[in-house]
Amino acid sequence: MIAPKDSLATESLDPLPNSSRVYVSGTLHPTVRVPMREIALAPTKTFSGEMEANEPVRVYDTSGPWGDPEFDGDVEKGLPALRRDWILKRDDVSSYDGREIKPQDNGYLSTSHAQIASEKRGGLSALSAPENARRQPMKATGHPVTQLWYARQGIITPEMEFIALRENMYAAKLADYGDDIVRDDLDKQHNGSTQQQTDYTPSVFRRFPQRIPKEITPEFVREEVAAGRAIIPANINHPELEPMIIGRNFLVKINANIGNSAVASSIEEEVEKMRWATKWGADTVMDLSTGKNIHATREWILRNSPVPIGTVPIYQALEKVNGKAEDLTWELFRDTLIEQAEQGVDYFTIHAGVLLRFVPMTASRMTGIVSRGGSIMAKWCLSHHKESFLYTHWDDICDIMAAYDVSFSIGDGLRPGSIADANDKAQFGELEVQGELTKRAWAKGVQVMNEGPGHVPMHMIEENMARQLEWCHEAPFYTLGPLTTDIAPGYDHITSGIGAAMIGWYGCAMLCYVTPKEHLGLPNKQDVKEGVITYKLAAHAADLAKGHPGAQYRDNALSKARFEFRWEDQFNLGLDPERAREFHDETLPQEGAKSAHFCSMCGPHFCSMKITEDVRKYAAEQAISEEEALKRGMEEKSAEFVEAGAEVYQKA
Amino acid sequence: MIAPKDSLATESLDPLPNSSRVYVSGTLHPTVRVPMREIALAPTKTFSGEMEANEPVRVYDTSGPWGDPEFDGDVEKGLPALRRDWILKRDDVSSYDGREIKPQDNGYLSTSHAQIASEKRGGLSALSAPENARRQPMKATGHPVTQLWYARQGIITPEMEFIALRENMYAAKLADYGDDIVRDDLDKQHNGSTQQQTDYTPSVFRRFPQRIPKEITPEFVREEVAAGRAIIPANINHPELEPMIIGRNFLVKINANIGNSAVASSIEEEVEKMRWATKWGADTVMDLSTGKNIHATREWILRNSPVPIGTVPIYQALEKVNGKAEDLTWELFRDTLIEQAEQGVDYFTIHAGVLLRFVPMTASRMTGIVSRGGSIMAKWCLSHHKESFLYTHWDDICDIMAAYDVSFSIGDGLRPGSIADANDKAQFGELEVQGELTKRAWAKGVQVMNEGPGHVPMHMIEENMARQLEWCHEAPFYTLGPLTTDIAPGYDHITSGIGAAMIGWYGCAMLCYVTPKEHLGLPNKQDVKEGVITYKLAAHAADLAKGHPGAQYRDNALSKARFEFRWEDQFNLGLDPERAREFHDETLPQEGAKSAHFCSMCGPHFCSMKITEDVRKYAAEQAISEEEALKRGMEEKSAEFVEAGAEVYQKA
Repeated sequence: MIAPKDSLATESLDPLPNSSRVYVSGTLHPTVRVPMREIALAPTKTFSGEMEANEPVRVYDTSGPWGDPEFDGDVEKGLPALRRDWILKRDDVSSYDGREIKPQDNGYLSTSHAQIASEKRGGLSALSAPENARRQPMKATGHPVTQLWYARQGIITPEMEFIALRENMYAAKLADYGDDIVRDDLDKQHNGSTQQQTDYTPSVFRRFPQRIPKEITPEFVREEVAAGRAIIPANINHPELEPMIIGRNFLVKINANIGNSAVASSIEEEVEKMRWATKWGADTVMDLSTGKNIHATREWILRNSPVPIGTVPIYQALEKVNGKAEDLTWELFRDTLIEQAEQGVDYFTIHAGVLLRFVPMTASRMTGIVSRGGSIMAKWCLSHHKESFLYTHWDDICDIMAAYDVSFSIGDGLRPGSIADANDKAQFGELEVQGELTKRAWAKGVQVMNEGPGHVPMHMIEENMARQLEWCHEAPFYTLGPLTTDIAPGYDHITSGIGAAMIGWYGCAMLCYVTPKEHLGLPNKQDVKEGVITYKLAAHAADLAKGHPGAQYRDNALSKARFEFRWEDQFNLGLDPERAREFHDETLPQEGAKSAHFCSMCGPHFCSMKITEDVRKYAAEQAISEEEALKRGMEEKSAEFVEAGAEVYQKA
Repeated sequence: MIAPKDSLATESLDPLPNSSRVYVSGTLHPTVRVPMREIALAPTKTFSGEMEANEPVRVYDTSGPWGDPEFDGDVEKGLPALRRDWILKRDDVSSYDGREIKPQDNGYLSTSHAQIASEKRGGLSALSAPENARRQPMKATGHPVTQLWYARQGIITPEMEFIALRENMYAAKLADYGDDIVRDDLDKQHNGSTQQQTDYTPSVFRRFPQRIPKEITPEFVREEVAAGRAIIPANINHPELEPMIIGRNFLVKINANIGNSAVASSIEEEVEKMRWATKWGADTVMDLSTGKNIHATREWILRNSPVPIGTVPIYQALEKVNGKAEDLTWELFRDTLIEQAEQGVDYFTIHAGVLLRFVPMTASRMTGIVSRGGSIMAKWCLSHHKESFLYTHWDDICDIMAAYDVSFSIGDGLRPGSIADANDKAQFGELEVQGELTKRAWAKGVQVMNEGPGHVPMHMIEENMARQLEWCHEAPFYTLGPLTTDIAPGYDHITSGIGAAMIGWYGCAMLCYVTPKEHLGLPNKQDVKEGVITYKLAAHAADLAKGHPGAQYRDNALSKARFEFRWEDQFNLGLDPERAREFHDETLPQEGAKSAHFCSMCGPHFCSMKITEDVRKYAAEQAISEEEALKRGMEEKSAEFVEAGAEVYQKA
């Protein structure tokens, strides 16, 4: 039985409160339309009782067409092909028949097995695909069709302009840096570690200076991509994608992992999890499915995803050999890469740095090899007593990536799985090889980022960032956490959120989220949300610390709303308006309480914010009377006031 | 109606799984018995199928007698007076009648008003107190009776020995430092920032070196207290307390705030919240009650609390003048200090650094004055155009503190309430005054810690720690968070947990927790637990980064359990065994799954940890065959093996 369409989960489509969708158009490429969410605010009630309007706040929006109330789409149709014309206009790709999909791609012996399984399951069918899947794959006809290749030619693609507008957000509105203390202007912010070195600037900023301009221009995007310091994961067969960039001179990004496993979950759940994750702010999504229907699940996800999709192709390859790592072959892996590249996967995690010589280094570890990809390859290497075919076939893999613009996410198969194993020889040995592989991929015109740990105590995090920048030639770093302690299973979104915020500050370009279920089970929708929001706040804390232009704007707007008891605005400007409202209402459920000038912490009788309002009012009144005094020629008193503002309250 | 005793909430008394209570006895003071929780572990199943026992793990236990299954007590009786004999033996205090309790202390006009209110409410009565409250208060007969005074005299008190044993935990078991990479010995750990300076050591460690010995001795405790670098909050009228220490050369501590307010909650709830907070690891508890029954609530809490209790006396004083800050007087405040000192409050937050000249500096802030105590005093200063009576009467306050051994927690009334206001002139102006007040308190023999922010972006946190150490002469720092971004209401335990972990690493001695309800409402029991555990993990992450001896032991034990698929041990060694088990069981509820060698992430078919086991097994087998080879005289092959362990898998 196939579940009727209207039973599909659509909670992800509920709009966020007081928000509307706006688009900013490109100038170099007028077809570029960058979506943003605009949050409308209530006016401020001034001391004199007048209403003063507050500008709406625009925020980066990863939800794609699903976040646009005007969009009339559904999962069974898929998303429109936003980038198709941009890709075709470059006139360097052609469509072709593509690889034939086999029952084995979904883990079945034959079509009839798949048929039976699909009928049993219900929901979105593993035997069909969204309507927009009915088109031929494309591939390069000559040179690499990567954003890196275009950037090196000096070409600013529509993708690059899209990103510049998207990243810019409040940047262009920003006033001068150089004033370390912020006043109440919403667009002011502290100097970050990038703008000003102090005694407290981490050494990684001295060794590898960041370059964050006051305004993100399309040319800046191009330069960063050309230099390999940033990537734009955007497979030509994923035209539904809204371009985004990963690099340490841009906003810190976050990734959410989803994917069914042998134990639980359906295609439908995974597609909804993808939309759900992007609703809350996931910049990319990795589909780590491991059970049946891997190919079909991925197709449904890709055709409905506005964000880049990453995968670990060795997972699917392993399913094709029934879980026997030793039966893996280069040919099978190559076929899987092409299968996934044709579908439109935007980046591949490939654990080519797990070399035979590193494997025994892990035997004395507290927790050995914890990366799934890493252990698969370790097992293969051991069984065959040969160097990893991922390493020996690296150039062949690069050629495939270049033909579809799939980016590398070079895996860290030997990342530490415990505090004890942090920064050890196996881990750093692999990182050096990642650097070699990065250079080789660049030589083939392929975009690259590097994956990093894992479990690392706080004081050993910066070293990870510094070594990666040095050994991997400033390619973007993409880390999992790191978790800063092992003693809190059930709270590893937090143990890792701490490390993620720190490494983001030091220069990590993308943070792979960890959910509360890490180490314990598969995340459900609530866990996905908890993980995404934890990482969103960690990434934002990093943007503030780096000094990303405009990053503080939202903090300022929210704090102003908080201070002025605009409760609804405080909720709506936050990362999770629903939870903020729910928590507030637990103590003070009455609707009136949300416009009241007090809160449940102190009650109506006394409120510290209220007192500060009085201080301000008093200061304002004093200032007016001083002005009047000035007019009346009482210069002396006025001068006293101006010089010794601190004394203002002693005089009256 | 008074609710019957057995209806009192006792969830806090449910024992933690597989745990028993053990006591470690003193040698200098044989009456010292330090409680610890011992977690029993399952044996490891080795490759050969044999069972290898795992030592039980002892952890720091803040739950007091409530955490001892042998303890037959209840809230209406209160806790035994553990320290009473220690205090009396010093022969420097005497009992006296004490101040008479007035209805106004509980916010009522008269006894009959209080009577009526109490009958309406039910639960623990505001008109009675626990049985152990029936004793006279004590105070000093001559010299200060503070732990600082004794320390300066060279006296090692029983409190100091208690603390040495408590802090020591695994320290004495620790092997040498100097080996940066840990092997699988459970008692090895990474060098922290205290043991080894690297390129990545924060500058605060260079300017203010930490001194953490390999073993915490009673003499070390005494030295640190004598130098003012640590405090032992322990009012002579709170003999129920189990001594603990706050200082940056010891384990990082956390505080949980509770307290009823005008809007919600009962005495009973607050007493249970206190027990609940200490069950999950709160090292101290602040009672921030602001509504009715402040005196009675505090009495119930103190008589049942095994941890130090802190208060902000100005809150109660304000209630006594019906919330009108301008009506506060020194005499009323003084009377309130004595009232609370006689009850046994262990530390007072006093916002004496909010000077008149700083108040106008806050008028141009994004969020003005957000500290309740700070704004009360600002309002008082403005109304009277006078310097704060807390500042002008500082020496008088010190004399009271010295007579009961109440410690100062010098408040930061001008802490930033938003990212925008971090590290501004008002905040740092007050911090400098805190330093002056610290010296004056030390001159009077009073113990001191300093409170700190608040809201601070990551890159500006270290400066807070460095300035506090410099200006406040290395007195312990006690911070609220800091929150590293303002944009996540509902998740401020996390935005602040990031900052808390970092400042703990830099040297902050105690972290005041923030719950998910921060800025939104009053925390319920679940929020208290979430806040405590978040801060516990942050404090522990800081201990790892500082290199506190033995800190990594629990991480190692848990990681070993995780790696060996000892699921129950993994749950039980964590900070929240209940949640870990619950999360695991959501995906794999069967009891068998918890002894299975796989988990829901990858399923039974393939598991990366399983593969690592194979790697190890292989390495072990290889090692054995090498040994045999050696015996047979094949020295050449053996040498090759020893030198190039990395090649082991290439040979067979």
